[in-house]
Amino acid sequence: MKATISVVLKKDVLDPQGQAIQKACHALGHLQVADVRQGKIFEIRWEGQDRKSAEAVLQEIGEKLLANPVIEDFRIENIQV
Amino acid sequence: MKATISVVLKKDVLDPQGQAIQKACHALGHLQVADVRQGKIFEIRWEGQDRKSAEAVLQEIGEKLLANPVIEDFRIENIQV
Amino acid sequence: MKATISVVLKKDVLDPQGQAIQKACHALGHLQVADVRQGKIFEIRWEGQDRKSAEAVLQEIGEKLLANPVIEDFRIENIQV
Amino acid sequence: MKATISVVLKKDVLDPQGQAIQKACHALGHLQVADVRQGKIFEIRWEGQDRKSAEAVLQEIGEKLLANPVIEDFRIENIQV
Repeated sequence: MKATISVVLKKDVLDPQGQAIQKACHALGHLQVADVRQGKIFEIRWEGQDRKSAEAVLQEIGEKLLANPVIEDFRIENIQV
Repeated sequence: MKATISVVLKKDVLDPQGQAIQKACHALGHLQVADVRQGKIFEIRWEGQDRKSAEAVLQEIGEKLLANPVIEDFRIENIQV
Repeated sequence: MKATISVVLKKDVLDPQGQAIQKACHALGHLQVADVRQGKIFEIRWEGQDRKSAEAVLQEIGEKLLANPVIEDFRIENIQV
Repeated sequence: MKATISVVLKKDVLDPQGQAIQKACHALGHLQVADVRQGKIFEIRWEGQDRKSAEAVLQEIGEKLLANPVIEDFRIENIQV
């Protein structure tokens, strides 16, 4: 099975590097770009067929290894058996 | 409108930090985790309604500002008007 | 001239990915590794000879483009003419 | 003891996100900024007093967990007892 965990800064946390990329979009001529937020993704493959237990494992990996709950949110996406 | 651009290492490019996270999954007891690959996401919001021209702009931003074509692939996801 | 700007999480901000790398060090047999903190560096080259004005520019780049002052510290290092 | 491991893209590897930050420096008015390269740092603390064995451990951590030797270089810096 495989899945993706996305880790993004919470909405109210400033992202200066995302803003730098937005400025670079403007410098390229794309003035319509209003906001860029930078985050991380983790593509995870594992052995097993049980979607339920997989979700529990992914939840724990997100909480304990990938995201800082004070400043980041994470979401589990695209679980594929 | 908004969309996400995901930037991931090409399949044949080694990802030691992803492997470190896989080892940490094992240390947590999740021995079924077979592979972890780390990448970046960029959540982009922009003014405008035209999906076609948006796709062209996102393609250019991915190519020129976000991904190194020699070692990384990018994909445009979740375009929402 | 060139210099490095290091951006690191503040001391009291949790770094789960740094901890994952510490766990992976342990899994490699290096049990003496007590702590790993992950950060970013930016190697910057610019035209000009004036160290004083360079420091002011680097300070502004650190503040406005690279570091989130709520969760991150930055330091300017290795200024070389 | 503590030390820093810096992981940077090799000189001939393109860094589009570093270039995006350079463009953002220009957008801020700092036209003298000629190049920005983005990398990672890892601040590592460990138990022990032996600098020689520490260097060997840091070398192995850099090689096995932190840097992809095809595209990245790493350097060990600021070892402090």
